[in-house]
Amino acid sequence: MGVVVKLSGSRDPGASLAPLVALVEEDMAHVNRIILDRARSNVDLIPELARHLIDSGGKRLRPMLTIAAAKLCSYGGDGHVRLAASVEFMHTATLLHDDVVDESNLRRGKTTARLLWGNEASVLVGDYLLGQAFKMMVDVGSLGALRILSDAAAIIAEGEVMQLITANNTETTEDDYLAVIDAKTAALFAAAAEVGAVIAGRPKSEAAALRSYGRNLGLAFQLVDDALDYSGEQSALGKSVGDDFRDGKITLPVVLCFRRGNAAERAFWERTLKDGEISESDFAEAVDLMARHNALADTMERARHYGAIARDALAIFPDNEIKSALLEAIEFSVTRPY
Amino acid sequence: MGVVVKLSGSRDPGASLAPLVALVEEDMAHVNRIILDRARSNVDLIPELARHLIDSGGKRLRPMLTIAAAKLCSYGGDGHVRLAASVEFMHTATLLHDDVVDESNLRRGKTTARLLWGNEASVLVGDYLLGQAFKMMVDVGSLGALRILSDAAAIIAEGEVMQLITANNTETTEDDYLAVIDAKTAALFAAAAEVGAVIAGRPKSEAAALRSYGRNLGLAFQLVDDALDYSGEQSALGKSVGDDFRDGKITLPVVLCFRRGNAAERAFWERTLKDGEISESDFAEAVDLMARHNALADTMERARHYGAIARDALAIFPDNEIKSALLEAIEFSVTRPY
Repeated sequence: MGVVVKLSGSRDPGASLAPLVALVEEDMAHVNRIILDRARSNVDLIPELARHLIDSGGKRLRPMLTIAAAKLCSYGGDGHVRLAASVEFMHTATLLHDDVVDESNLRRGKTTARLLWGNEASVLVGDYLLGQAFKMMVDVGSLGALRILSDAAAIIAEGEVMQLITANNTETTEDDYLAVIDAKTAALFAAAAEVGAVIAGRPKSEAAALRSYGRNLGLAFQLVDDALDYSGEQSALGKSVGDDFRDGKITLPVVLCFRRGNAAERAFWERTLKDGEISESDFAEAVDLMARHNALADTMERARHYGAIARDALAIFPDNEIKSALLEAIEFSVTRPY
Repeated sequence: MGVVVKLSGSRDPGASLAPLVALVEEDMAHVNRIILDRARSNVDLIPELARHLIDSGGKRLRPMLTIAAAKLCSYGGDGHVRLAASVEFMHTATLLHDDVVDESNLRRGKTTARLLWGNEASVLVGDYLLGQAFKMMVDVGSLGALRILSDAAAIIAEGEVMQLITANNTETTEDDYLAVIDAKTAALFAAAAEVGAVIAGRPKSEAAALRSYGRNLGLAFQLVDDALDYSGEQSALGKSVGDDFRDGKITLPVVLCFRRGNAAERAFWERTLKDGEISESDFAEAVDLMARHNALADTMERARHYGAIARDALAIFPDNEIKSALLEAIEFSVTRPY
């Protein structure tokens, strides 16, 4: 089943991650070797399960941010590679725990680890990867980077708990929702970019600029993700369109629709997302309501707002090909079809 | 229901943790304040759930080791207090995830967090506490201590995965079993003691001695725990006697019984622990088999073996009241009725 709804307002459909990918390619090959090496263990289940996720072809946006930020700051060492691998491990650990909490069956188009190996293994291998992430950070030896990434670890978990609490609450405000994605998504994007400046020993203003770039890119990225769940093409998205709806997740498109809707429409959202009574035709109805209230287009508009902040954050850096690739990554994030 | 079987071979039933508790009391009060402070969050569920575990009256043996080790090494700063709080948070996070993995209903005599707040919350609050633990370590600023504790975090998770794999396997050898408890229990005891020497800037020989003391104390402690699950008094133990049996856990008493038993007895262990077919009278039968094969007494004997190694490890330190309290803690651990 592929439900396709054109998102209006895409301004630069030609924007791509390709320039960024090309610039960090060599270092990312190194990051990937470290990731495979550090997912090793004498306990076979650990590398098996970790490789399932690692090989599943995510965009690796977060570690790319660390590499690119370090390059933008003319970092000359090799610590950025291990920090990038740490960032990806933190992310992978979060995904493993997330899938358990959400009882997800598909992740990036593949059966989730928890279905293949069980919830228990997913919880514990997530813990293992988090432990490895901290070991790698310690190896790099930058207390500044350690502080930023351990702060992020606590904030991410706090955001996940917040999300658990607000789950199924149709009265969630846009502010509540933003607080959740700021913690559960944007915090790692922010930390990933900031540590690039910190290990390069750059002044606070540059670390803060990269932090702001990462944070706002992360917010934009998550908002688009949420819109795509009601509009994307299943094969390209790598997860089931409508997953958020069926899981009763309150994302910005829902927040907007609920608030803009009439009493009958609110009753629809309460029945489906709060009470979890979902019938075959309800997802199509949800998509119709989104169109009626311009909820997806406005979610994309909000994403572009954060994208604009991310763009301005980078303004203090001189123009060069890395800066330009990082700016195009914003454009890609707010126009991407997957 | 309180099943009480006297464990033979207790040599010093008068040994107590009291001297150790008294010596670290002041610092532990500080540790407890930090723990409560760091379990705070604007997300109410986090402090609620964390306090449930924190207030549930564990022995706090691990953070006490950090404090006592730092004192033994004449440490003059205050970093040991935050490292001790980190150690307790790491332990608490492990307990939260453990209870989810084991589907436990009781922990230290109280209903487990996962039953009260759900598995999801337990997984995520565990992650939060682990993040806070790393934040505190970073605050202390000792890369040496960070290395030891992040190594331990990865090893503990690896041990938990190992345990998950060997679960219900009655053919587990004593060596396999030791590898599991070395990772899942002894590693944190070892790290907790070692970091006391490391932040005090003591030579490697002293850090290694405290690491060895902690590791072997941890092994002894876990072995006695395993024996108590077939012999302790429920009210004192704070968990249901027979829990390990009903969960199909393969602990040393079972390993010994299975190997020493005849074909009919092995069939009994396979039916109950491997196949999970347990009837009302099976636990009493299991306790009888343990007595027939001296399995509990010999498990306690093995515990005393590790206790002896722990004792010798401390020999390089001059005699004083802290050393003497640490030695008595070994005696307590191998003779304790709870």
